[in-house]
Amino acid sequence: METVPARRGRAVRLAAGQAIRIVNTHGTQVVDTWAFNAGDPGEFMSMEHLRGFIGSVFPKAGDALLTNRRRPILVLEEDTSPGRHDTVIAACDIHRYRMLGCGDYHDNCTDNLHAALAMIGFPRTETPSPLNLWMNIPIAADGGITWGEPLSKPGDHVLLRAQMDCVVVMSACPQDMIPINGKDCTPVEVHFAVID
Amino acid sequence: METVPARRGRAVRLAAGQAIRIVNTHGTQVVDTWAFNAGDPGEFMSMEHLRGFIGSVFPKAGDALLTNRRRPILVLEEDTSPGRHDTVIAACDIHRYRMLGCGDYHDNCTDNLHAALAMIGFPRTETPSPLNLWMNIPIAADGGITWGEPLSKPGDHVLLRAQMDCVVVMSACPQDMIPINGKDCTPVEVHFAVID
Repeated sequence: METVPARRGRAVRLAAGQAIRIVNTHGTQVVDTWAFNAGDPGEFMSMEHLRGFIGSVFPKAGDALLTNRRRPILVLEEDTSPGRHDTVIAACDIHRYRMLGCGDYHDNCTDNLHAALAMIGFPRTETPSPLNLWMNIPIAADGGITWGEPLSKPGDHVLLRAQMDCVVVMSACPQDMIPINGKDCTPVEVHFAVID
Repeated sequence: METVPARRGRAVRLAAGQAIRIVNTHGTQVVDTWAFNAGDPGEFMSMEHLRGFIGSVFPKAGDALLTNRRRPILVLEEDTSPGRHDTVIAACDIHRYRMLGCGDYHDNCTDNLHAALAMIGFPRTETPSPLNLWMNIPIAADGGITWGEPLSKPGDHVLLRAQMDCVVVMSACPQDMIPINGKDCTPVEVHFAVID
């Protein structure tokens, strides 16, 4: 197993047919996740295209995850957690932490995305809205959203299988100013493995 | 009043402090809406940044509409309709109509966005997730979404006031294969006026 260190991002190339298992090692960690067509950074997994296709704001095991050209890029093949993953909230960024009162630089998922892509030499892209694995954002009938704690338990995993050659990026969310990564507000590492 | 013809898009420049009134003339028409910083096409109204800020998937009168840098670009000052506007569904595109069974080219909001921007000489941008005025997408507690008909009545309007110099783009959604623009599946024109 490889590690996404606490507060950091990692990018991994998958060939079509390969899969990535992402493990919520401690059970409390949100992982912002993106996927890009390996041959075209302008095509990427898109939450706004996905929701209409699956008829839900919460993807579940068996769902194909679509790109902005409405093609499957990943399939969520396995999910041992209660299936509460967020699709409606943007990746955190320097602006988010400034609005929460942080005066200095704060690690954030947006910068982690671009740093992780740079590490593997992938071209700079826009910042798609991420699939926030294990981020628990209930939506009420009146549209109101709640910032909950993850419902996952230590060792829960998802398995995402590539439907095209792609790059998957994970950011172990560095949010420590609200309890989105558990009540202790302590971002931790997660693990992953690429599976043929 | 100016017209956004049925199935077409229009882009309008607003100076900070100006407002645009968008009128759902027939009450049944969805209007996909975008806003871009006039000085920087890389900054635009962002649904995924908005939802966390307002704590809801449904913006209401009084809400500031944020950009992807979490700055207000518009304020939704007035809304005479029941306030059901969608923020979770992507603009329709050629891929959407192909999946619905359309073999030929079909007018679509994504192409309308880029054509409208080209008409005023604004640089080519990415395709942000739009604010879908009057598009009625209820979300159930389990996350399930429903494709409803607009709840608006003829003459309902919204007033959006610019918080920075910006370009607002409207597309009178050409969807005629499902009843998102009313049970008759007939896209129609809407009207707008810029107000100092």
